[in-house]
Amino acid sequence: MSKSQTMMALVFDGKVRLRRDYPRPTFGRGEALVAVRMAGVCSTDLEVLKGYMGFSGVMGHEFVGVVAEGPREWRGKRVVADINCVCGRCDMCRRGLSNHCRNRTVLGIDGHDGAFAEYLAVPVHNLHEVPASVSDEQAVMVEPLAAACQIARQVKIDVASNVVVLGDGRLAQLVVRALKPLLGHLLMVGRHATKLEAAEKQGVATVLVGDFVPTAKADVVVDATGSADGFALAMKTVRPRGTIVLKSTVAAESGMNLAPLVINEISVIGSRCGPFPAAIKALASGKVDVSALVSKVYPLAQAAEALSEAGNGQSIKVLIHVP
Amino acid sequence: MSKSQTMMALVFDGKVRLRRDYPRPTFGRGEALVAVRMAGVCSTDLEVLKGYMGFSGVMGHEFVGVVAEGPREWRGKRVVADINCVCGRCDMCRRGLSNHCRNRTVLGIDGHDGAFAEYLAVPVHNLHEVPASVSDEQAVMVEPLAAACQIARQVKIDVASNVVVLGDGRLAQLVVRALKPLLGHLLMVGRHATKLEAAEKQGVATVLVGDFVPTAKADVVVDATGSADGFALAMKTVRPRGTIVLKSTVAAESGMNLAPLVINEISVIGSRCGPFPAAIKALASGKVDVSALVSKVYPLAQAAEALSEAGNGQSIKVLIHVP
Repeated sequence: MSKSQTMMALVFDGKVRLRRDYPRPTFGRGEALVAVRMAGVCSTDLEVLKGYMGFSGVMGHEFVGVVAEGPREWRGKRVVADINCVCGRCDMCRRGLSNHCRNRTVLGIDGHDGAFAEYLAVPVHNLHEVPASVSDEQAVMVEPLAAACQIARQVKIDVASNVVVLGDGRLAQLVVRALKPLLGHLLMVGRHATKLEAAEKQGVATVLVGDFVPTAKADVVVDATGSADGFALAMKTVRPRGTIVLKSTVAAESGMNLAPLVINEISVIGSRCGPFPAAIKALASGKVDVSALVSKVYPLAQAAEALSEAGNGQSIKVLIHVP
Repeated sequence: MSKSQTMMALVFDGKVRLRRDYPRPTFGRGEALVAVRMAGVCSTDLEVLKGYMGFSGVMGHEFVGVVAEGPREWRGKRVVADINCVCGRCDMCRRGLSNHCRNRTVLGIDGHDGAFAEYLAVPVHNLHEVPASVSDEQAVMVEPLAAACQIARQVKIDVASNVVVLGDGRLAQLVVRALKPLLGHLLMVGRHATKLEAAEKQGVATVLVGDFVPTAKADVVVDATGSADGFALAMKTVRPRGTIVLKSTVAAESGMNLAPLVINEISVIGSRCGPFPAAIKALASGKVDVSALVSKVYPLAQAAEALSEAGNGQSIKVLIHVP
């Protein structure tokens, strides 16, 4: 492939533009060129539109694709990929915390072109093969489902735990699906009856936020609302010495009184990325069912419309398919 | 003693008033009447003046005194006391988290007359005898030192840990003294050269906040500043996957961007009260030296002046002696 080849890509440079002449990514030693098959829109993409991380380039970080070029052993394989591209040499990488690499770039979020395109370049180290039993529509959920699976690795949760998930959006839906098999008491609190219904169908108890009375009894509260209101409600919902898992990146400044954290000796745990193998396994085994989460699928040529749809508050997961 | 007996007390009821005719506390089964010898002013007392917990009554919760009346086995003993008066029956008490009793009152802070007085009533269950080797000036520090000792029980800290304490006030001074014996790398960041000097004399490395450049390298950051600025600085100082211990109750609303907690997967642990026996032991053994912390001692009749002195930003610990 010559460097002069171009491709279709959704690019953000202060404005969102669909480009049909974007240069195909070049890739070096240790990288692979992946032909994207399907990509997912995440709330972080919507934050990027507002200036998150000062990103410019090809958007998108949730995807499944096929390795088009790169090391022989990867060519032709259907893959998903960790979004953090790391140096392997800094103090965080040496500590085994490469997700927090000091020199990292992040696909479609920070310094690295992303997946709303025909092709993207990814370090081979980031690739995970997708088994045939997992469809493209499922595989595109691996990245956010991995982030959901991370919760049970950061917080002690067992069948006796009383867990409340605040939010009913894309990430919250995956969080309840990842946690349900582990828990006896799980409640989802949301603003949208139709979204809560999707969780109810998976056997998750739900309540509209207007009908929810926090009683400071939950052992763990997962805040996946993406709003400062959500964090304030989390502080009222969690029991003394309980844990709030903060799951959504809120870039807005917000008025906030943190005194309840001290008075009630609450722990807050920030939680971002998670283990891909666990997510792939959960999908392959059928333990996590994501079938009802796709609200709409757009072709790449309409990727800008897909972003609008994802931001309308009504849809759950919006996908982009590429041929 | 008849109920008609009165005493001197510093009372808050929206305004601070020195009362010479305040009724001596009555006390019931399981309680003791303690004659206060010395009390300490804490930042929480200053918050009470601003309306914290809507408290009204006798102020003060840090004290050492002698049991004047109550069960025979306690009479005449010199004591300090846990500040949380608990029910022993609620879900938190049954869980072993009685500091978070749902029905608690708190000496001088919430629904229970406190220690800026000649006498106070305390549940016998709360009393700890003070050994003769610990002076009154030391014993009055037991409550806040216990709160400082709590940190090492909530966070994994060892000699290899890199710990930064933000703040140089009363609580921060006790925190560095409690942590110093456990740590190789301890740095105190403060606004006052004279206060930092007090920590330097204990072998603690210090730096003025204006000269401090946060590098996101600390394993643990203790925020004992009592300000929202402190929390923002803590988020820049702690490493990814590190821990911020939030130590001071800030009742003020403040603008705040919590996104760094998620991006860097930081844990925040609220920390309030701590173990009295550990604090008494640390003082008795000489492991913690609090001698240089007392800025000024006032008689009870000038307790209001003691509060002003404690709030002037220059003093470290202000004490009140009785009579």
